[in-house]
Amino acid sequence: MKGAFITIEGPDGSGKTTLIDHLKTWLTAKKIDVIATREPGGTQLGEVLRKILLDDHDHDHDHGDQHDANTRIRARISDQAELMLMFTARMQHLHEVILPAMAAGRCVLCDRFTDATYAYQGGGRGISERRIQQLEDWVQQGLQPDLTIMLDVPIEVGLQRTKKRGIMRSSGRPGGDRFEQQQLDFKEAVRQAYLRRAEKYPQRIKLIDATRSIGEVQDDLTAQVEAFLTAPRGARQG
Amino acid sequence: MKGAFITIEGPDGSGKTTLIDHLKTWLTAKKIDVIATREPGGTQLGEVLRKILLDDHDHDHDHGDQHDANTRIRARISDQAELMLMFTARMQHLHEVILPAMAAGRCVLCDRFTDATYAYQGGGRGISERRIQQLEDWVQQGLQPDLTIMLDVPIEVGLQRTKKRGIMRSSGRPGGDRFEQQQLDFKEAVRQAYLRRAEKYPQRIKLIDATRSIGEVQDDLTAQVEAFLTAPRGARQG
Repeated sequence: MKGAFITIEGPDGSGKTTLIDHLKTWLTAKKIDVIATREPGGTQLGEVLRKILLDDHDHDHDHGDQHDANTRIRARISDQAELMLMFTARMQHLHEVILPAMAAGRCVLCDRFTDATYAYQGGGRGISERRIQQLEDWVQQGLQPDLTIMLDVPIEVGLQRTKKRGIMRSSGRPGGDRFEQQQLDFKEAVRQAYLRRAEKYPQRIKLIDATRSIGEVQDDLTAQVEAFLTAPRGARQG
Repeated sequence: MKGAFITIEGPDGSGKTTLIDHLKTWLTAKKIDVIATREPGGTQLGEVLRKILLDDHDHDHDHGDQHDANTRIRARISDQAELMLMFTARMQHLHEVILPAMAAGRCVLCDRFTDATYAYQGGGRGISERRIQQLEDWVQQGLQPDLTIMLDVPIEVGLQRTKKRGIMRSSGRPGGDRFEQQQLDFKEAVRQAYLRRAEKYPQRIKLIDATRSIGEVQDDLTAQVEAFLTAPRGARQG
């Protein structure tokens, strides 16, 4: 059996991590052999590149000087080089994890994939769709997720949630208001780019309103995945 | 004045490093504002990627565990991801170092550039020219070095020289002969790919026989650069 490749997209504060855990448990209970992975990351190379790309909050074990070096690199990296690092991590992830798992008939749950690149590097940073698609074609050569769950929340809601978790902090520095406004504009551009993707690929991308209670969102999520799993194979992509 | 972009290509043991130092001194004596840089590398990002890509001998200041982590990553990296890392380092190098220096009218001397990618990842690893050229076009958008000095040595000569410097060691492990034969085949494929580049771009690439004495090679090198510098601008590329 050919495995399935399911990606979960959405901004910070959309409940993505919790929902992926839930979906993994739900699939496992159905005797489906599932692996959960993430981008950027998922391989040793990818995790090194992730530390360069993102100022994550799960780097407690890093050397402080390595963290500082990555912060300096991040400050200087061009948008185009950032985009290439994303696709490099993806190339290795496909080679080392995703394609072998699918070939073994497993179900791959991936926390973010190429739709996120169109949203963050495209919508957010302003790189053209054409430039992104050239790298996508080079790396993926036509491969697409079988199903993409896209969690949508207006940015105000996402922001309130991440503030509660202490991920977003007020910058507290001079000019902080302007910096925060830029962050809001960035997040709004990312959301709009995500929504354009959902509109462009309605068969593959299932948009879920993530402002509702966690129980409602979980039910919607599993219903979408159930519908996907029980659909005839040939009807999956459209 | 628009600066000049000169690349120096050649295998280990071709005397590349010494010759770049010589050329830099020679250009500086002519009151030419020169910067020397290298690939992969030349930026903070590039040097981090270099450590992943190459088992260099100039990493004495690394944490031992970081070196081990890079060795593990290198063992698993796919040829295609390796190629992308090379071009990612190049994208940042162009953005951060090469293009600004040229815009300021400086002369950039670069130890390896895209010809090396065609030689090592193309000839050596067997990635098709078409695949490499797609990334080259994406990253460079037509930009080429103004002049490329290509140092050519038969692999036996290069090998003797690197052995003297202690860079190449006999592996000393079971199956070592087969491993060393693979290394020889790799080096020969790299050399042949370099020579094909020189044949394809005779105006840009000047091939230098690096088996001769260092004095003869230096004289040949500076004569080539002198001819390039005194040629009318429009005649440089052909």
